[in-house]
Amino acid sequence: MTPIDFTKMQGAGNDFVVIEDCDEQLQLSAQQLQFLADRRCGIGSDGILLLRKDADFAYRMVFFNPDGGRAEMCANGARCIARFAVERGLAPESHTFLTDAGVLSANVEGERVQLIMPLPSSVQLHHTLSYDDRSPVPVHLANTGVPHAVYFVADVSAVDLADIGPAIRYHQDFSPTGTNANVAAAADGELRIRTWERGVEAETLACGTGVTAAAWLARELGLVHFPLRVHTQGGDVITIAEDHGQVIHTGPAEIAFRGQISL
Amino acid sequence: MTPIDFTKMQGAGNDFVVIEDCDEQLQLSAQQLQFLADRRCGIGSDGILLLRKDADFAYRMVFFNPDGGRAEMCANGARCIARFAVERGLAPESHTFLTDAGVLSANVEGERVQLIMPLPSSVQLHHTLSYDDRSPVPVHLANTGVPHAVYFVADVSAVDLADIGPAIRYHQDFSPTGTNANVAAAADGELRIRTWERGVEAETLACGTGVTAAAWLARELGLVHFPLRVHTQGGDVITIAEDHGQVIHTGPAEIAFRGQISL
Repeated sequence: MTPIDFTKMQGAGNDFVVIEDCDEQLQLSAQQLQFLADRRCGIGSDGILLLRKDADFAYRMVFFNPDGGRAEMCANGARCIARFAVERGLAPESHTFLTDAGVLSANVEGERVQLIMPLPSSVQLHHTLSYDDRSPVPVHLANTGVPHAVYFVADVSAVDLADIGPAIRYHQDFSPTGTNANVAAAADGELRIRTWERGVEAETLACGTGVTAAAWLARELGLVHFPLRVHTQGGDVITIAEDHGQVIHTGPAEIAFRGQISL
Repeated sequence: MTPIDFTKMQGAGNDFVVIEDCDEQLQLSAQQLQFLADRRCGIGSDGILLLRKDADFAYRMVFFNPDGGRAEMCANGARCIARFAVERGLAPESHTFLTDAGVLSANVEGERVQLIMPLPSSVQLHHTLSYDDRSPVPVHLANTGVPHAVYFVADVSAVDLADIGPAIRYHQDFSPTGTNANVAAAADGELRIRTWERGVEAETLACGTGVTAAAWLARELGLVHFPLRVHTQGGDVITIAEDHGQVIHTGPAEIAFRGQISL
């Protein structure tokens, strides 16, 4: 098979294999996607992004998890594919593209990429999760392309996320699809967040949709004001603001290297 | 800076960034080497291999750990660079090259690479490690380019290597340079091995020099015969034999992809 050209990128510590597949020539099996995401035998990444041609928008973003399953939306990935499209001359710095979760606009300014996203949906404040074997957990809910539950705490570093993360993620109230689980803390007008990601089934260094959901809910609760700086576990900062009834999400998108791989 | 061409390879689950640097144009700082080995921001690997021109041999292998420190020898890396040299037309299938630990010969047969290595040095059977706070540990010692201590057990999977590994690796008898620590078990004429690697300071999926040391010591102790199949933790098999007073070490060397990175 002809080698496939790819670009390895990362946004806030979340890393992606990005491939231009305008004419949908690539029909990748789950096994091939798993190989691409394999850090020792393949390339290694938290996800695979395909850029495909679209009739109405600059392109369509197709996102796959490392297990080969397709996911609707990934904000860190969306920033990366927007920069990729600009670098490859496939879109102007300001453009609009399609994801499985709907339309996004991007403004690419070098390594910083601004995403203009719809307002969160299914927002629900003060939802208490009950358990037979542990204390109730007060969470707040929002969907930013994927569902998120956010538990506000005093200090995110003090949380045993490997314990509370799955307890929220698999709670019966979110059955059968489950939710992503976040803990967040507001201090000095900024937010710190840690996320247990559904699909990854582990804590990740940054989850862009979780950042957006937590920022939105923190403002709804009066804990913070916009524009809001959100500190991710990987050490990067994503800024969330609102303008004309849309969310403005701004964060890094860096190119690590380019390569060719045979499948 | 001009992008650097590299090849990503792996041998028995141990992965490497391999770079042709015949004329020693690359003067990589520890920070640049760490970046190349970074799995999210850079390329990601267990080590960096540079192929440099040598006056007397096909080439010289220079090996760096992920922390940027130079190491004398890495057998999994040596198999990879030998295949790389053949694929790039820099050496014939049978060739001799230089490492910081001495001269090696290689026979490259596609994905299987045979290394012809000197016999282990500093072999010492039945060395007992004493501790104030734990039971004595009976080990056997050999140097296969780097020092190895091998503790033979009934079942390697039952060993708490995160406990016993550092206890051997840092034992005062090996001070100040320390040793690599292996546990190995002979059964049905084959060997299983797990290694706690000095420098990595963790268990790795495979350590080629550890495989060679453990195989040699197991035969000295009468536990096995050569040629010997050694099963690594990553699931691969490395075969060890002896011929005319040299060790014949045969294992896999696979190409994952090629790429270009700017530093």
